[in-house]
Amino acid sequence: MTRTLDGVGATPRTGVGRAVWYRPDAALDLPDPPDATTVDPAAERERFERARDEAREALRAERDRAAERVGEEEAAVFDAHVQFLDDPQIEASIAGEIDDGLPAEHAVRAAFAGPIEQFEGMDGRMAERADDLRDVRDRLLRLLLGDDGTDLAGLPEGSVVLAERLTPSDTARLDPERVAGFATVTGGRTSHAAIFARSLALPAVVGVGDALREIEEGTEVVVDGEAGEVATDPDADRRAAAEREDAAEVHAGAVTTADGVPIEVAANVGHPSELAGAADRGADGIGLFRTEFLFLDRETPPDEDEQYEAYREALRAFPDGRVIVRTLDVGGDKPIPYLDLPEEENPFLGERGIRRSLGADADLFETQLRALLRAAGDAQGGLAVMLPLVATVEEFEAAAERVEAVAAALDGEGIARGAPDLGVMVETPAAVLLAPELAARADFLSIGTNDLAQYVNAAARGDERVADLHDPRHPAVLRAVARTVEAVRGTDAWVGMCGEMAGDPDLTELLVGLGLDELSMSAVTIPDVKARVERTNAADARELAERALRAHTKREVIDLLSQQPDQP
Amino acid sequence: MTRTLDGVGATPRTGVGRAVWYRPDAALDLPDPPDATTVDPAAERERFERARDEAREALRAERDRAAERVGEEEAAVFDAHVQFLDDPQIEASIAGEIDDGLPAEHAVRAAFAGPIEQFEGMDGRMAERADDLRDVRDRLLRLLLGDDGTDLAGLPEGSVVLAERLTPSDTARLDPERVAGFATVTGGRTSHAAIFARSLALPAVVGVGDALREIEEGTEVVVDGEAGEVATDPDADRRAAAEREDAAEVHAGAVTTADGVPIEVAANVGHPSELAGAADRGADGIGLFRTEFLFLDRETPPDEDEQYEAYREALRAFPDGRVIVRTLDVGGDKPIPYLDLPEEENPFLGERGIRRSLGADADLFETQLRALLRAAGDAQGGLAVMLPLVATVEEFEAAAERVEAVAAALDGEGIARGAPDLGVMVETPAAVLLAPELAARADFLSIGTNDLAQYVNAAARGDERVADLHDPRHPAVLRAVARTVEAVRGTDAWVGMCGEMAGDPDLTELLVGLGLDELSMSAVTIPDVKARVERTNAADARELAERALRAHTKREVIDLLSQQPDQP
Repeated sequence: MTRTLDGVGATPRTGVGRAVWYRPDAALDLPDPPDATTVDPAAERERFERARDEAREALRAERDRAAERVGEEEAAVFDAHVQFLDDPQIEASIAGEIDDGLPAEHAVRAAFAGPIEQFEGMDGRMAERADDLRDVRDRLLRLLLGDDGTDLAGLPEGSVVLAERLTPSDTARLDPERVAGFATVTGGRTSHAAIFARSLALPAVVGVGDALREIEEGTEVVVDGEAGEVATDPDADRRAAAEREDAAEVHAGAVTTADGVPIEVAANVGHPSELAGAADRGADGIGLFRTEFLFLDRETPPDEDEQYEAYREALRAFPDGRVIVRTLDVGGDKPIPYLDLPEEENPFLGERGIRRSLGADADLFETQLRALLRAAGDAQGGLAVMLPLVATVEEFEAAAERVEAVAAALDGEGIARGAPDLGVMVETPAAVLLAPELAARADFLSIGTNDLAQYVNAAARGDERVADLHDPRHPAVLRAVARTVEAVRGTDAWVGMCGEMAGDPDLTELLVGLGLDELSMSAVTIPDVKARVERTNAADARELAERALRAHTKREVIDLLSQQPDQP
Repeated sequence: MTRTLDGVGATPRTGVGRAVWYRPDAALDLPDPPDATTVDPAAERERFERARDEAREALRAERDRAAERVGEEEAAVFDAHVQFLDDPQIEASIAGEIDDGLPAEHAVRAAFAGPIEQFEGMDGRMAERADDLRDVRDRLLRLLLGDDGTDLAGLPEGSVVLAERLTPSDTARLDPERVAGFATVTGGRTSHAAIFARSLALPAVVGVGDALREIEEGTEVVVDGEAGEVATDPDADRRAAAEREDAAEVHAGAVTTADGVPIEVAANVGHPSELAGAADRGADGIGLFRTEFLFLDRETPPDEDEQYEAYREALRAFPDGRVIVRTLDVGGDKPIPYLDLPEEENPFLGERGIRRSLGADADLFETQLRALLRAAGDAQGGLAVMLPLVATVEEFEAAAERVEAVAAALDGEGIARGAPDLGVMVETPAAVLLAPELAARADFLSIGTNDLAQYVNAAARGDERVADLHDPRHPAVLRAVARTVEAVRGTDAWVGMCGEMAGDPDLTELLVGLGLDELSMSAVTIPDVKARVERTNAADARELAERALRAHTKREVIDLLSQQPDQP
């Protein structure tokens, strides 16, 4: 009989397959340690050091793989793991335990216990470090015990992975070609596992709770990331529905609403390796091409030619579409050794984005603009440049002047170049309040709802204690979006959205109604959003948007959205 | 001959007096250390420990004095000093130097050198820690050498203190009754010295540069904190003007613009010790009574009776005025041992203000509301309650429900209580966007421009790297203020401002023009602002505000303001 468990959907996709329990900790039930006199400390130290070197190498490889498949930001988790691996205090503690007569594996377990417990007692982000420590400890133990646990990379095709939790290391090893989805007992929408799942377009439900443990190995399971449900032993209808939904229909061309309003649906891309997938899933172009991957994890900045090649690669993937490249957007929360990045108490409110490009990183900005203008010369208008974190008209004007200066310099050197559109990423409330002036000067505005919601509601992204305030369905966020769109009407500029909000199919009608010309999102949701656009009637959507803008509370907005005909 | 040096005005007041150079470091030119064999390490260790105990005791006393005279937030500097004083690494390093044969004073100097250099190499806030370390080191050295430097607390009346820089310890020792003002070579508007000067209403100019060093001891000096000037050997006119200006005219009663629009001018107060000064300087009431002083630096929260007495004390100071009490506004950046305060990467965007009062600190909130409603019962309408960091209508409604519940509980217990007005501190962009809904529900809105500018422009208070973006003259900030005021028109609510912007006399006409009913500020600027209100014509002010709202850049706003007839 079908049984349905509720959890938190991580990806709006559905998969069906056979349950495979991943129980990495099962390998970690150590026997009691042998008598201390039988242990050779020198040999155990060597065993530990060998395991650590292997772990470091594996972490670096997984780091690179995650960077390619998920994005640089998430790959940074692995850097944190390497740091723990090389932590001198933990190392000293392991050496001490070995000297006291413990074998390497028992020494590792003992040495990690204190730090894990310490972080567990802390709040929010710090508590997550306990998971990182466990991940590092278990990796060392598996290497020391010669047990690799369940081989996540070699699962049979059509597996649905079930686990207590999946670490970033675990998730990065999943092969989307073989795994139909996963479900975990713990975790929330912003857990690493959920973020990796979205990036890999894997059907996933997290935070299902204890009931998940009752599903037996080999059971047929539907993972419905849209509804946030895990269903066992589905009946024929449910299985067929799942299989149908899984084969998301890709709309290759441009889409319009049912009544003919064109909406561009583009992809957010963090690395060139994602370009092909974005094109496969029907992206009309790239609405946000992040350039941080070019600058992170290296000792010197990329030169003009390296950047030029990267931008050309993006343009080649979308020969008929538009590629919007965001200039370097870093601040004190990202480690880049060759930049003088500040230590700030509130890095999200600090020197970052365009502020650095017009100040401390002016040289980098010039090089990036040179590469962009050269690439634009080859692209016949398909390339556009977007400026992050603009908060004043002065900033936009200063950046536009830099573009002019770079253009003049290239002309003087006889180097071919284009004149890319220049736009503003609207993510500060100031940019919303100045949208009329910015729209009069820029070629386009693109609303970055992740940061905008953060600043409008004074609630940091990733801070679980204020997670509710980060919901874009709060009326204040909707009003900020509406004011931006209104400011663009009557100018020559167009207005898009490239925050996570744009990729939520349940919000598509509302966003069309608010008047956005373009929506840019993770490639995985493009087919769903295109389908929603085609089912939307623009006139009805405007009515919905007007009602949502009159709502006083998030609850009212949710109620309005649930009355849409598309809703179950 | 008069000579005028330019600096940064810290307080809009002018003082005149005789120069007294404060050169604390002069006492710190240590002779070469004696031969190591003549040093008795045990005796030196004891000397050091005695000096440290004395220093700790003195720091605690100065801490309490600063808390009373300046405010809890600034007093926290001294806690950081105690931490450095007791830092185990520095202590070990001093012990090591003594064991190597150095006398205690040389050991102190040697042990602090490394950490000071380390912090000096860092950015922003971290670099300021080097000043803190120097402050602690010099205090220890003075105690070890038996030299107290210039006795700041015992200066002759009418002294103008000149110094390279003044530490918080130095500034807290200045007696406003005897010191006519101070000027320093280094420092900016947000340096500790400038903040202390404002709190003490001391005329002060900081950041004058090298030229200040040329002023000789005993020279007659005018410190003009309004113009940001230091003038030596003033002629009779300038001296007379300074003396006249110094005796700032206090307007005891309510003021109106020249054309009869009433503007309430109130004081921001952080501690009951400031109440008398606020009344003396002509405050009509308290526009922002911060309650953090009741909760900081203790092991358990204050009980209902202690709070009730504190609120009554504020009401007694303004028997005919209004006292607006802000409920507890803390977050992860403040150390309160008995609260479970989160470690957050961006505490300004975290769990703080009303979020904690409706969540983790619900019990504290209930106790505070009980004390407030009881005090309101004695006050015949003079007490109002203000909620910090409101970002949603739901938050206001939940808080209003708690007030209702507390009122019902007090009635049930037969305890007398009032029904205080309930208002919102508008400091998130969300509150601006929801101002129509909030104004329909609340009795008043008061705009907190310090936080509002921070969130509108995504630029942290106190982060010098983004200090320009924190300027309230940016058009986006003015527009946020204007939208809030517009939303209140046509409702029964009134709207005020309690951020630093409200206390800048050069912005008074603009704020009147924007339509604010009330301005609340540090007591020191009340006479100037009241004078400005009386010279303002409300119709002209509205015209100025309209033009400022059409400005695209901060520069345009500054140019507009400089065209006011009041400007020099």
